[in-house]
Amino acid sequence: MFQKKKQVKIRLHYNEMSLKEGCSLTLKGDQAHYVRDVMRAKPSDAVMLFDGTYGDWTCIIEEISRSGVLLRVEALSGEYMKTPDLTLCISLIKPDTMRSVVRQATEMGVTVIQPVLTEYSSVRNINIQKCWKWAVEAAEQCCRQDVPVIKETMGFYDLRDLESQLILCDETGKGEAPARVLCGVENLGIVIGPEGGFSEKELLYSEAFAGKMSLGSRVLRVDTAVVAALSYVNEHCLS
Amino acid sequence: MFQKKKQVKIRLHYNEMSLKEGCSLTLKGDQAHYVRDVMRAKPSDAVMLFDGTYGDWTCIIEEISRSGVLLRVEALSGEYMKTPDLTLCISLIKPDTMRSVVRQATEMGVTVIQPVLTEYSSVRNINIQKCWKWAVEAAEQCCRQDVPVIKETMGFYDLRDLESQLILCDETGKGEAPARVLCGVENLGIVIGPEGGFSEKELLYSEAFAGKMSLGSRVLRVDTAVVAALSYVNEHCLS
Repeated sequence: MFQKKKQVKIRLHYNEMSLKEGCSLTLKGDQAHYVRDVMRAKPSDAVMLFDGTYGDWTCIIEEISRSGVLLRVEALSGEYMKTPDLTLCISLIKPDTMRSVVRQATEMGVTVIQPVLTEYSSVRNINIQKCWKWAVEAAEQCCRQDVPVIKETMGFYDLRDLESQLILCDETGKGEAPARVLCGVENLGIVIGPEGGFSEKELLYSEAFAGKMSLGSRVLRVDTAVVAALSYVNEHCLS
Repeated sequence: MFQKKKQVKIRLHYNEMSLKEGCSLTLKGDQAHYVRDVMRAKPSDAVMLFDGTYGDWTCIIEEISRSGVLLRVEALSGEYMKTPDLTLCISLIKPDTMRSVVRQATEMGVTVIQPVLTEYSSVRNINIQKCWKWAVEAAEQCCRQDVPVIKETMGFYDLRDLESQLILCDETGKGEAPARVLCGVENLGIVIGPEGGFSEKELLYSEAFAGKMSLGSRVLRVDTAVVAALSYVNEHCLS
């Protein structure tokens, strides 16, 4: 346990400039606060930075001050592992639940989060900047090397224009088993509705552009449905 | 939408007396408050009660007062679907996360929740009464007909005495793929560690009594790991 506490494990997303061996940079604001005050790092401690392009860079802290944390980039450690394309089309939901969904979708390997306004959506707006921040935090913690893109909200009926092959999670009992509907699908988009599900009109209309997957006989809350659906995707499409 | 709002959809767990057609009972306390003040039900509205033994009973509200809600049991609607045995052994974690885990595990079909004290558990106590309440709420909402049992906490090394076949979710990269490790397992117990995972000693010791499953290359938070693991179980053992 002692060794566990001593070892500084800091991993941050950094895209303000391109990184290369030997270059220096200064972390500011929230990132400096996190390194200095939350993790209480000291000069010569290591910090990992990932830029979403090359992978994880090992950096060494050279100086810590109130104005920022000066780092020197040491080396690229390990190759960049691009997360395979996977879109989550998620109904607008209350911010607390959206925060869980963004975090968990990031952990489960979603590369694009597409907010969707549906008939039963309980809210009509989303703060995309906040969603991006939650996604960055989750990527930092789950050791992903990229951060999902958060798109602008689109209406449910515009989903048909997406290039992804869409699979809609249907709680009315009419969806097919995951193994059946997901097998062999590429460039996948999973569509998850709000509490209350999709309207009859939405379900009918979606038959023209989306397959339907069942998540079982129990009624799942949105966050559970997201992780369950993405687990089936990982199992049947990406493994 | 109008019809959707008019229709009262109330489903409650009730085990204070055994139910049968034609009998009357009075909901008190929180349940009465929920029916009367939250759902604003009226006399002659329907309420579903499930007792964990026979299934869902349709009841009709006869009278609503400050002291309680009087119901008459009409009929048993649909056969009892027992949830297949499935144990979740979960490290003690902070109450907020435990609340999510209990809810999501209930949605995903766990029948026994076994709290476990591990070396890196961030808390050392659990309020079992609260966990039971969260499980009841989740069962009511997800349309399960039974409520998971919440056990007293046990130490990690006592897990070997459980009768379940244990599969431990291992984030060190040494676990096997879900399809491989779960195939054909019955009376399953999934073991999930705290943030920070299991200690080396725990991992070594567990080899004597548990298989190891990988949940992928990313580091999952506890709630995500629980739903992902249970999704794989649903896919490979229970479907």
